[in-house]
Amino acid sequence: MSQRGKIQDVRITPVAFHDMPLLNSVGVHEPYALRSIIEVMTEGAYGLGETYGNSEHLDRLQKAAERIKGLFIYDTNALHRVCTELLADDGSTGGDGMVTTASVVDKVFSPFEVACLDLQGKLAGVPVSDLLGGRVRENVQYSAYLFYKWPGHPGEPDDEYGEALDPAGVVKQAQKIIAEYGFKAIKLKGGVFPPAQEVEAIKALHEAFPGVPLRLDPNAVWTVETSQWVAKELDGILEYLEDPAAEIEGMAAVAKEASMPLATNMAVVAFAHLPPSILQNAVQVILSDHHFWGGLRRSQTLAAICATWGMRLSMHSNSHLGISLAAMTHLAAATPNLDYACDTHWPWKRRDEDVIIDGALKWVDGGVNVPTAPGLGVELDRDKLARLHQQYLDCGLRKRDDTTYMKKFQPDFSAHIPRW
Amino acid sequence: MSQRGKIQDVRITPVAFHDMPLLNSVGVHEPYALRSIIEVMTEGAYGLGETYGNSEHLDRLQKAAERIKGLFIYDTNALHRVCTELLADDGSTGGDGMVTTASVVDKVFSPFEVACLDLQGKLAGVPVSDLLGGRVRENVQYSAYLFYKWPGHPGEPDDEYGEALDPAGVVKQAQKIIAEYGFKAIKLKGGVFPPAQEVEAIKALHEAFPGVPLRLDPNAVWTVETSQWVAKELDGILEYLEDPAAEIEGMAAVAKEASMPLATNMAVVAFAHLPPSILQNAVQVILSDHHFWGGLRRSQTLAAICATWGMRLSMHSNSHLGISLAAMTHLAAATPNLDYACDTHWPWKRRDEDVIIDGALKWVDGGVNVPTAPGLGVELDRDKLARLHQQYLDCGLRKRDDTTYMKKFQPDFSAHIPRW
Repeated sequence: MSQRGKIQDVRITPVAFHDMPLLNSVGVHEPYALRSIIEVMTEGAYGLGETYGNSEHLDRLQKAAERIKGLFIYDTNALHRVCTELLADDGSTGGDGMVTTASVVDKVFSPFEVACLDLQGKLAGVPVSDLLGGRVRENVQYSAYLFYKWPGHPGEPDDEYGEALDPAGVVKQAQKIIAEYGFKAIKLKGGVFPPAQEVEAIKALHEAFPGVPLRLDPNAVWTVETSQWVAKELDGILEYLEDPAAEIEGMAAVAKEASMPLATNMAVVAFAHLPPSILQNAVQVILSDHHFWGGLRRSQTLAAICATWGMRLSMHSNSHLGISLAAMTHLAAATPNLDYACDTHWPWKRRDEDVIIDGALKWVDGGVNVPTAPGLGVELDRDKLARLHQQYLDCGLRKRDDTTYMKKFQPDFSAHIPRW
Repeated sequence: MSQRGKIQDVRITPVAFHDMPLLNSVGVHEPYALRSIIEVMTEGAYGLGETYGNSEHLDRLQKAAERIKGLFIYDTNALHRVCTELLADDGSTGGDGMVTTASVVDKVFSPFEVACLDLQGKLAGVPVSDLLGGRVRENVQYSAYLFYKWPGHPGEPDDEYGEALDPAGVVKQAQKIIAEYGFKAIKLKGGVFPPAQEVEAIKALHEAFPGVPLRLDPNAVWTVETSQWVAKELDGILEYLEDPAAEIEGMAAVAKEASMPLATNMAVVAFAHLPPSILQNAVQVILSDHHFWGGLRRSQTLAAICATWGMRLSMHSNSHLGISLAAMTHLAAATPNLDYACDTHWPWKRRDEDVIIDGALKWVDGGVNVPTAPGLGVELDRDKLARLHQQYLDCGLRKRDDTTYMKKFQPDFSAHIPRW
């Protein structure tokens, strides 16, 4: 490998972008969502990565960035080792304010791996989907990701989506989002209202969109008994039920009774969780997420494990920008056994707020056309990056905390689970 | 991807090279071993693969070669699909005269995948080990692979290794092979003589090479009870016991009693075998082999599965030439959780018989230095290829059949198992 592939510098820029008051089991989305934008620089080229923006994660990213200078962009084994050693030195093993208990090493490693693949693709003149084994689809389907929501952030005007706090509001939201994007599957983020009310919302969606695959995700706030009741109520209506109850054991107990597959991005979020989950047949669908499974190639390993053990595969998302959407799309494009439309929070951000140059990611018919330019196929817009970074500096948020924000308006709110 | 990466032509050349009369459970190696050499041609470059040379396999390779013209060298998803469809059309599902029941699709796919990776490396200017995630070792260790053997093929002069039919002969063989290559681990191919005699050979090796890791592989010719007896006899002496009994169930029964880990390249040889084997804890070491696990990237998936389920990893070999040795070395170099010295038949072929240009593969201290030239780092020697192909045409062998060859000299020989 010539000097051409050597990492000369790494730049990490925290950014904030406007988010809407989307409700979930732990509270409500704050006015801004945070992300970290990673640039890995080699001689004459740069690669992009995107990940969480909370300060604890950011701090780890910055420490890793110092240590990976001088590595070659192909040497992801060394990159992973550096991240492992860094976190061992750090004594970091646990949570970082995110909803999952995924491997911290894999979370830190992920955006650098993506950036290295972006660079590998650019140097070889091929899209990342080619590096991952070639596109099995030219358009990656995403789902309409519905949220209960307030009309706007308290004290601000209503946003363009307005209120959705009952079945009728949810159906209206679905109509708007589908009219705009053409999504052919629908997910409702639940865990917000009593289960019977969320069951009604799903039934209303089923009536309004006959034949459209539906999913419900209460983020594990239900007991096993409640989960089983919901599963029975929604028999024949849901394509999968996502994280009804907590932990592998809870999911396994629900799975024994549920007619539909159970999906997770909470109970099984790291390779170490796979053996006990498979032993108990706790989940039937893994919601892959390269941000916490350790990048694109490790996500492919996860996909191969799903194929080997007869589990199905779908994709999870957090609030994200265009670099992540590009990475998710390349990964999905090269994954033969992707069985469902992927999740995305894309519609909830403002159209003019991103860090990439417009036009690279084309939404067509409920999906994104896989970019065919070398690497991820997206380029940084430095003016926009500067603007979103200034927004980060100005907004004052340094970690995601939906619960505290919720308590400002509902002081008696509790994120304790199980709630129902 | 430009036209540069498009497969324009594929050339498959069957070759034969001299082999020695190595004894195993199914008979004795014939005077020639067969291999197929694969060249995948793009505009201005070629990639190399090597695989089995029996005519049934060769026929499938040739059919696949016709169908993959026009594919891009990155599109291994399409390549695998083509192989799957080809074999479905063919009605081929089963064996091909080889010892394993591995996936036929993966066996046909493998050499083309290796050749495509060779090309990807050449086009990107990086060694295959970089494409696979980077070298975690610069020298890949191999084991001294001992065989009971006749002094020479019947009717021919003794070969340079001479006879090894008892513990003393085995120790002498080990001394010669280690003096020449510096191997630091020893494997004995067993299943040839009654178990007590092979136990004595291992004990003699243990005495002659104190502290050197030892392995014994009878190719599943023992009953569960015999296997358990051998395991007890060799407690504290073997680093692993390889395929003592047949099938996952047999291995699981032996594993319950054995103090050392059990290894396999017979009971678990395809992804479909992993779930039942893991459920029963049938084997603790997988002997990976990219020739039947579906190429280098799928072998990496296997390695990741081993890491996830706490199984160990080593590497199996058949008689092979330099292209395979290069591929094995790159794979091993990029696999962090490779726990043992790999197997190789390398010392058993004549030094002047290969299809690659001399000098690319350097044996140092019991291992091969990982080539750092782009791709596999080996180039075809067309004169040698022509000579080995002529040898193939002249020798008349079209499949491996150790049993029939053995019966020429020992008419009452039977390969029936379990034998002891």
